[in-house]
Amino acid sequence: MGEVQVDESRYWGAQTQRSLMNFDIGRDTFVWGRDMIRALGVLKKAAAQANAELGQLPTDRADLIVQAADDVIAGRLDDHFPLVVFQTGSGTQSNMNSNEVISNRAIEIAGGVLGSKNPVHPNDDVNRGQSSNDTFPTAMHIAVVSELNSRLYDAVAKLRDTLAAKAAEFDDIVMVGRTHLQDATPVRLGQVIGGWVAQLDFALAGVRHADGRARDLAIGGTAVGTGLNAHPDFGRLTAVKISEETGLEFRQADNLFAALSAHDSLVEVSGALRVLADALMKIANDVRWYASGPRNGIGEITIPENEPGSSIMPGKVNPTQSEAMTMVVARVFGNDVTVGFAGSQGNFQLNVFKPVMAHAVLESIRLISDSCVSFNDHCAVGIEPNLSRIQANLDSNLMLVTALNPHVGYDLAAKIAKQAHREGLSLAESAIANGISAEDFDRWVVPVDMTGR
Amino acid sequence: MGEVQVDESRYWGAQTQRSLMNFDIGRDTFVWGRDMIRALGVLKKAAAQANAELGQLPTDRADLIVQAADDVIAGRLDDHFPLVVFQTGSGTQSNMNSNEVISNRAIEIAGGVLGSKNPVHPNDDVNRGQSSNDTFPTAMHIAVVSELNSRLYDAVAKLRDTLAAKAAEFDDIVMVGRTHLQDATPVRLGQVIGGWVAQLDFALAGVRHADGRARDLAIGGTAVGTGLNAHPDFGRLTAVKISEETGLEFRQADNLFAALSAHDSLVEVSGALRVLADALMKIANDVRWYASGPRNGIGEITIPENEPGSSIMPGKVNPTQSEAMTMVVARVFGNDVTVGFAGSQGNFQLNVFKPVMAHAVLESIRLISDSCVSFNDHCAVGIEPNLSRIQANLDSNLMLVTALNPHVGYDLAAKIAKQAHREGLSLAESAIANGISAEDFDRWVVPVDMTGR
Amino acid sequence: MGEVQVDESRYWGAQTQRSLMNFDIGRDTFVWGRDMIRALGVLKKAAAQANAELGQLPTDRADLIVQAADDVIAGRLDDHFPLVVFQTGSGTQSNMNSNEVISNRAIEIAGGVLGSKNPVHPNDDVNRGQSSNDTFPTAMHIAVVSELNSRLYDAVAKLRDTLAAKAAEFDDIVMVGRTHLQDATPVRLGQVIGGWVAQLDFALAGVRHADGRARDLAIGGTAVGTGLNAHPDFGRLTAVKISEETGLEFRQADNLFAALSAHDSLVEVSGALRVLADALMKIANDVRWYASGPRNGIGEITIPENEPGSSIMPGKVNPTQSEAMTMVVARVFGNDVTVGFAGSQGNFQLNVFKPVMAHAVLESIRLISDSCVSFNDHCAVGIEPNLSRIQANLDSNLMLVTALNPHVGYDLAAKIAKQAHREGLSLAESAIANGISAEDFDRWVVPVDMTGR
Amino acid sequence: MGEVQVDESRYWGAQTQRSLMNFDIGRDTFVWGRDMIRALGVLKKAAAQANAELGQLPTDRADLIVQAADDVIAGRLDDHFPLVVFQTGSGTQSNMNSNEVISNRAIEIAGGVLGSKNPVHPNDDVNRGQSSNDTFPTAMHIAVVSELNSRLYDAVAKLRDTLAAKAAEFDDIVMVGRTHLQDATPVRLGQVIGGWVAQLDFALAGVRHADGRARDLAIGGTAVGTGLNAHPDFGRLTAVKISEETGLEFRQADNLFAALSAHDSLVEVSGALRVLADALMKIANDVRWYASGPRNGIGEITIPENEPGSSIMPGKVNPTQSEAMTMVVARVFGNDVTVGFAGSQGNFQLNVFKPVMAHAVLESIRLISDSCVSFNDHCAVGIEPNLSRIQANLDSNLMLVTALNPHVGYDLAAKIAKQAHREGLSLAESAIANGISAEDFDRWVVPVDMTGR
Repeated sequence: MGEVQVDESRYWGAQTQRSLMNFDIGRDTFVWGRDMIRALGVLKKAAAQANAELGQLPTDRADLIVQAADDVIAGRLDDHFPLVVFQTGSGTQSNMNSNEVISNRAIEIAGGVLGSKNPVHPNDDVNRGQSSNDTFPTAMHIAVVSELNSRLYDAVAKLRDTLAAKAAEFDDIVMVGRTHLQDATPVRLGQVIGGWVAQLDFALAGVRHADGRARDLAIGGTAVGTGLNAHPDFGRLTAVKISEETGLEFRQADNLFAALSAHDSLVEVSGALRVLADALMKIANDVRWYASGPRNGIGEITIPENEPGSSIMPGKVNPTQSEAMTMVVARVFGNDVTVGFAGSQGNFQLNVFKPVMAHAVLESIRLISDSCVSFNDHCAVGIEPNLSRIQANLDSNLMLVTALNPHVGYDLAAKIAKQAHREGLSLAESAIANGISAEDFDRWVVPVDMTGR
Repeated sequence: MGEVQVDESRYWGAQTQRSLMNFDIGRDTFVWGRDMIRALGVLKKAAAQANAELGQLPTDRADLIVQAADDVIAGRLDDHFPLVVFQTGSGTQSNMNSNEVISNRAIEIAGGVLGSKNPVHPNDDVNRGQSSNDTFPTAMHIAVVSELNSRLYDAVAKLRDTLAAKAAEFDDIVMVGRTHLQDATPVRLGQVIGGWVAQLDFALAGVRHADGRARDLAIGGTAVGTGLNAHPDFGRLTAVKISEETGLEFRQADNLFAALSAHDSLVEVSGALRVLADALMKIANDVRWYASGPRNGIGEITIPENEPGSSIMPGKVNPTQSEAMTMVVARVFGNDVTVGFAGSQGNFQLNVFKPVMAHAVLESIRLISDSCVSFNDHCAVGIEPNLSRIQANLDSNLMLVTALNPHVGYDLAAKIAKQAHREGLSLAESAIANGISAEDFDRWVVPVDMTGR
Repeated sequence: MGEVQVDESRYWGAQTQRSLMNFDIGRDTFVWGRDMIRALGVLKKAAAQANAELGQLPTDRADLIVQAADDVIAGRLDDHFPLVVFQTGSGTQSNMNSNEVISNRAIEIAGGVLGSKNPVHPNDDVNRGQSSNDTFPTAMHIAVVSELNSRLYDAVAKLRDTLAAKAAEFDDIVMVGRTHLQDATPVRLGQVIGGWVAQLDFALAGVRHADGRARDLAIGGTAVGTGLNAHPDFGRLTAVKISEETGLEFRQADNLFAALSAHDSLVEVSGALRVLADALMKIANDVRWYASGPRNGIGEITIPENEPGSSIMPGKVNPTQSEAMTMVVARVFGNDVTVGFAGSQGNFQLNVFKPVMAHAVLESIRLISDSCVSFNDHCAVGIEPNLSRIQANLDSNLMLVTALNPHVGYDLAAKIAKQAHREGLSLAESAIANGISAEDFDRWVVPVDMTGR
Repeated sequence: MGEVQVDESRYWGAQTQRSLMNFDIGRDTFVWGRDMIRALGVLKKAAAQANAELGQLPTDRADLIVQAADDVIAGRLDDHFPLVVFQTGSGTQSNMNSNEVISNRAIEIAGGVLGSKNPVHPNDDVNRGQSSNDTFPTAMHIAVVSELNSRLYDAVAKLRDTLAAKAAEFDDIVMVGRTHLQDATPVRLGQVIGGWVAQLDFALAGVRHADGRARDLAIGGTAVGTGLNAHPDFGRLTAVKISEETGLEFRQADNLFAALSAHDSLVEVSGALRVLADALMKIANDVRWYASGPRNGIGEITIPENEPGSSIMPGKVNPTQSEAMTMVVARVFGNDVTVGFAGSQGNFQLNVFKPVMAHAVLESIRLISDSCVSFNDHCAVGIEPNLSRIQANLDSNLMLVTALNPHVGYDLAAKIAKQAHREGLSLAESAIANGISAEDFDRWVVPVDMTGR
């Protein structure tokens, strides 16, 4: 294959360099980010600790690896991870990237010569008892689970809690219900927003369940799942060390053949994120429709005005946070299809769509998290009822007629409603025209009593 | 493989029967329909004619095949096609089903003994010069192109023409424009509906382009694309005969290897149908939002009341045709993913996802066609403007303020709009409060002049 | 809306008839099937029982409804459910279909006049305390959960158990491992198949989790989620009755607003089914690749010959069950996109994509179930190792060289492998040519020892 | 909304700064790239030229805008475009970003004070006669069409031409055909590769057709499609100027309402790219399967060894370029779903999923282009037949028996094949054992004659 030159300012080695030359695909935006680099660092540190404890690696060499891996974990060596997602489908080249960088950084710490592989060899030491085929999916799971726990849950909870507080605050506000986009019997604004909260709670529980199942790691399977060349306890112990490092409980997977040749667990995580995206779509859409107007839409809530909607038109508040959110949903839907497709394409002992799956799941986590924070801070916190509009709409809503049934009978109630509709009357006007006193009407037609309180 | 028994009332033979026993998957709803059965009949007729003309089949035997195939084409033997979509991925069993049924029906016409394969042999005669690998994709294309031409174009055109007439009829009606769901400068209802028509025209042109490319047939490729066992002119001539039978111009594909191992043309048709579905989604959504209300929505158009929306509530007209249409769109989106995925999974000389691809494309054609007719007949024809609501909304629309700019300057115009918004005034009221005469206001603020006429 | 005529042989009434006339979309294949009809029957029976127990319905009238609903549950009235999926998006018309049919059948039992609504009124009695908006999603969940439990689990378990038995039976068979489609270190056939079993177990656990969450029912929410017009205990008690009828534990959902306006639980079920589909794709693909040949493919397993693969070519066994299975997967992927898209499109108090969501999930359940049974019975049960091929491949596999490392060192081992590759030698031949005795080679290179036993 | 501070080193202004603060979503990877920035520059330049020509803008001011826009086009101001995809759904903020940057850069050229809006105002001058609602979709189309023409066509053609040359070079090589992954009658390697070329040609023609239709621009529609505030000839003339600048023929769209409220043309482009992705999937898969082995796979072609596949195993050449390519396909499939979904979500006069649609289409173009170049340079150019393996496989292929039919009859031919299969003989051995002379066999069984030459 010939020689390759690596810039001397770089910790990486020949295998990374070859990948850099051979895979110039989407370079601008598809270089691996913090999440995967950190996960590789965590894995390599844990593996060195496990190997040392099992007598597979001298303690001093393991310590050097641990120190170098700590640099990777902390983000101090991110510039030395130049590879893109679209490389070998096993992630081999990113695994080697981490081996090479950690080896050279460890050598540097030890005062050795970069590239000498002495005293820390990228393959024999850093990759000891490992194969890309088990390390890369292990790192994928570490990255995904870590991102869920350090980023997504807090971001979604922030929005959820804001909405829950709004639901409580607005629980007394009675408004027109709408089904089929048509006026229906009343609901309270607190109930509406409470429905959104319930969707988020349901979706979050689903993501947490998938998260729990993604804690199973491929480590210990090595090249084909048999664990060849790894100490029998290596996988189990490495998972323990990973748990200690991350504060998140991981385990070695029961079946390592499945763990290398399929990534159904990531497909499941992606599916759970899609449920969350569905919920966010509903919420973001409801918000912008309720805020539509200012005069010729629904207009029952107001949202913060974050930027000029129109240079001359006051009150035109474009629901831009909803728009960003729903565009994120569109992207998450696409990512989910990518993951589901890729997950189906394994053959024999390996699925070689690992990088694209990891990338798409991590991107969805990131986008959902960021957009929940953005939507929360710049929109949800400022949702307010437009009380006069809500009341005017409620007053004109003919669906309130159902409250008259017990008092005047179905036939007269229907007559009142039909006349109101035909003649453009309010329900009260039509009721009075049909012989009901204003006092009775006000006593009988109490929208809040129709809302299940 | 042992013997199989076929009910004596059936024209089919052992291969069909085996498939019936071996593939009991989705039987209720996935038995092939008219479209594919007819296409197989057309193909077998054309093949017999071509073989006869090329001296590959005695004329009398070919005539018998033609007569039997005519029965298949006419739908007289549909009960003898019992197989489901989920069978061998080449469609072999459905090809054999047609061979067996045509053979036996031809034998019956000739006064022979069913099952004797004499004087018309299912393989040697009906399937002469053919393989499932080229006949089934040929039939797929015949079915898809025929359905587009006999069903889809008319159905969509019907809706398109209704809308075009509405656009012309309502061209004078000025209404509030809306962007970001927010009130914007005015448009005319004719322009709105004209935009829908333009979307349909664009989408239809795309489908017609894909249709034109789907006229290339795999016939003549036989088992692997080389044409082994077929007369060199057989494919070309059969395509001519198919064209004569269908009145639609088909050709033999230039590259038969691609025609067997990939079905990119059907992926293209499906993609074109998705564009159409996107357009229908926009139209159906606009219709139901414009018709939302009756009092607490947009309410600017009315649609036919086809069924009770509420037993007591007059005026609650649920936009059920829009709902059926958008559900069709959801299904078409799914079918499109099925087709795109299946189209990517060929190996070597064959793609073995043929049946599921054909089925999904045909289903999308059928559903789009049916729902366009339904939406047209039960909704679009009855779309009417709600003139009082349109006018009231337009009158209250603060975006009209931009018409004042040239006359009073930007600063005063903005002041007028802001005051109107803040105090709940109409624009005219605020203008007058700011020293503009009612006559000037009426002369300057002419919404129709803002609509590009 | 004018009068409608209903054929006197039919139990259905005007609302069903109107839907029949207004929604002629996909009639051939999209009429509701047993699963949804039965679920509607279960629901209406349970509702009548709950209403009676709560004093909302006279016991004798409730009994009539129960009897009629039992006919629906048992399938005796399927011909009276003629409506298609593409109707009103709330499923109102199918809810009314069940009300009308049960009412008329109950009237018939009571000796009354069909259509008289006496003594059992379709709305006031059968639909008492209900709205389509809560009954239809309730029926959706009943149908989906019932189909999972009565159909899918058994079907998948059947295949899973067959494979588990094969894994145990073939646990001693050592074969070439393959990663990146390239020869790799050995695995045992039992491990390979065990990996498939692990995938099915994982996927089934995911489906069961989603199933558990789909037990939450919308019943009691009525039109907008507030429960207007229903007894406060009606939803809870109806869920109890549904549980008794089905033997499956259902509950009323905690948040009825979310239960009407979103169907995230069905999106979750669909996502779980997609994981299962991913697993089945991997299994079906592995089977057909391992069985490829007979001479020029992998050829390491044989599968049953269910139908003629070629009229003259013995040994050409087309993997048709794999092909049907992977086509089902393509369909399930599409359905999943339909469900995810539809699930995102709710507005305000209602999602009006209910029917298409229910249909797609039920279709996926049915197709996966049927194809698992088919694949099991006609393929998996007959999987056998092709021992001579497996051994010949294993013998020629140069990856075994890694077993020499501990004995002769990395450098000599590499030399042996390279020479074997270059000169087309077996590894043993090359080893002997490099000075290793045949006895040592046989002692050191023991493939089974490389498989982690 | 309060004041915002912009770093003085930046050309952008308040609206850009606000977006930067309000939309911190996916910042690492979703900042707009060269393609969109350049397109905005092209548009603003053309608009200034058109406005000047129409007397809407003084020539000197237009010249300043042109100069500043040239800087944007050339990429000299990329650092001043900091916004991300997930912002307002109309792309307003990126449109304003370009207005602000061009205004300030023009002011700088004129020796003015940054931020003074004098002598070049971002709205009144740079954005003259425009609205985000027509400029952003115009820029989307410019970017997409430009990327297709400057990047994608060349990249795909490069691969296509390499393959076409290989097809010609290997046209004489006869090999086993394979259908259903099973041995079938022979084909020539040139035919196999020619099938791939035909797929690429078909797909490219489809993309070119979609490209042609994406030349229709929204410019001139301004805020709602009516062209309010733009000179009547502005849109048409701007399109002419864009054509001159890009060397690609653009036109103003016939219907500007559709051009703002739907982006069906981009959905069509995405669909055409998916067909291309389908073709690339087939090709990349065939390549890796044909190259599988080295000993225990198909092994009929060899591909370049670009990186170490295994540290000890010679001959293990992982098909990494195929893997990168198929992962790109997975990503393109996802992007296509994003685009199709987003395209369906327009309401009234605007679709507010513009940015995510543009981004996904551009990403697909970029990834397909890059991976075609990579696959070409590092894989396709080095594809070579493994002649000995091809011949050995061909010799053992029992499907050659069909060549005996005309000479010895079907029955004896079948007997020969069956005996060969049963006893593990070559076809020649079995033929001789059945009384056929070796000379006759060699004369009759000539694989190349079965390949349609």
